[in-house]
Amino acid sequence: MIISETKIRVYYQDTDKMGVVYYGNYARYYEIGRTEMIRELGFTYKQMEELNILLPARSLKINYLKSAYYDDLLTIRTIIDSIPKVKFPIKTEIYNEVGELINSGEVVLAFFSALTNKPTAAPKFFTDELIRLFNN
Amino acid sequence: MIISETKIRVYYQDTDKMGVVYYGNYARYYEIGRTEMIRELGFTYKQMEELNILLPARSLKINYLKSAYYDDLLTIRTIIDSIPKVKFPIKTEIYNEVGELINSGEVVLAFFSALTNKPTAAPKFFTDELIRLFNN
Amino acid sequence: MIISETKIRVYYQDTDKMGVVYYGNYARYYEIGRTEMIRELGFTYKQMEELNILLPARSLKINYLKSAYYDDLLTIRTIIDSIPKVKFPIKTEIYNEVGELINSGEVVLAFFSALTNKPTAAPKFFTDELIRLFNN
Amino acid sequence: MIISETKIRVYYQDTDKMGVVYYGNYARYYEIGRTEMIRELGFTYKQMEELNILLPARSLKINYLKSAYYDDLLTIRTIIDSIPKVKFPIKTEIYNEVGELINSGEVVLAFFSALTNKPTAAPKFFTDELIRLFNN
Repeated sequence: MIISETKIRVYYQDTDKMGVVYYGNYARYYEIGRTEMIRELGFTYKQMEELNILLPARSLKINYLKSAYYDDLLTIRTIIDSIPKVKFPIKTEIYNEVGELINSGEVVLAFFSALTNKPTAAPKFFTDELIRLFNN
Repeated sequence: MIISETKIRVYYQDTDKMGVVYYGNYARYYEIGRTEMIRELGFTYKQMEELNILLPARSLKINYLKSAYYDDLLTIRTIIDSIPKVKFPIKTEIYNEVGELINSGEVVLAFFSALTNKPTAAPKFFTDELIRLFNN
Repeated sequence: MIISETKIRVYYQDTDKMGVVYYGNYARYYEIGRTEMIRELGFTYKQMEELNILLPARSLKINYLKSAYYDDLLTIRTIIDSIPKVKFPIKTEIYNEVGELINSGEVVLAFFSALTNKPTAAPKFFTDELIRLFNN
Repeated sequence: MIISETKIRVYYQDTDKMGVVYYGNYARYYEIGRTEMIRELGFTYKQMEELNILLPARSLKINYLKSAYYDDLLTIRTIIDSIPKVKFPIKTEIYNEVGELINSGEVVLAFFSALTNKPTAAPKFFTDELIRLFNN
């Protein structure tokens, strides 16, 4: 299992008139979490794209447990708990400053070749590195 | 079952560098669909709020089936298929201009009293109207 | 002078915790206004792009006169008052439901060739049509 | 003159189909810059709001000089160069990773009392601290 944590500040633009983070913005937080995780692992989406591999989302599930408020410093915990094949499920948990789990969910991405315009297997260099990290 | 349809144009701001609608923007489309449905039924969220009833999201599921592109005119089909109690599940389907289903999902809202700060039953005037429409 | 009007509903996602439309969202409203104007004139940005012409923004000015609120039906009035050369200034005025001017501004776009990667003159078919409309 | 710098990573959600940061997103970057500046000075917007002081935007000017791209790490430089009275002008400059100025602009906020529902003078504790910093 690989776990990565990123901090996110809640800004004005993230809130709605209920005074909390707009429900539609969590997908953005999830993306920030997984982008930073992938960077931590030594990769970037950008590198994937240079290999003509895109990672479109196939599905998304979000559970809204508690609200997040303006100026909160949230912790985005991003979790990979299996080696991806064509599909790449990534779990996310979001915690507030007092450590409460306020949001949890899962996005399933798919490796997709921009050359063949079809789903494709996760690149070997990527799964090899994940396997290495899983075994550590 | 109550079905409502709204048209949405895809603007520049909805796309990302993959050239398609950003995965995180569908939650916004879902909200537009259900806001317009509730308006069609003769209600508005605003009226709910004047009754001190909020409708925060409890969960969200989205299936990304096909991409939506810049300038597409999408049809958001919003579906209520049960009478809400405290939870209010709403299904959404999105179709492109050639009639393909490109996205489907479900949000579960909850009726929430701003007075007691607790979940509350759907207001009677609302469920009565839904029952009337279901029986037509 | 060419004037075009589009209606926009204010949704939850457009508001912030002050309960009004977030100041950063007006640029999006301006874009919706000019996209619909260009469509009304019989063109689309998409057609421009097929000609390898992009229209990036060069500058933006916005005056915030009054707030816009959730559920408001706003009128976006988009105005072209000169024939564009390389730069393409577009004025926008936004009115609320009681006809008050709540926001005004101007974006200056530039015609830009994706082939030469340089600024370019407005395409003749486009300025010809504008001249025709100005003379009507 | 008070200068504050904040780093911002460009994520997928910030880009549009031109592959660059969407022109409408810079207002959000400006807000992040000034929020972090105000925090650095030892204040938060939140504290202002607890004093029933809001800071709505009155005007915004943005110059788009160069594009910002996905995955760029931008430097937001926020500048206060005068002691605010009722109006509070804040300048912003954005630099890319190679130190090029890619965007510059100015927002004018106004101190506004939520109690009287009218413009109000900048709170003395705030201007005093700014004067102290200007004199250092």
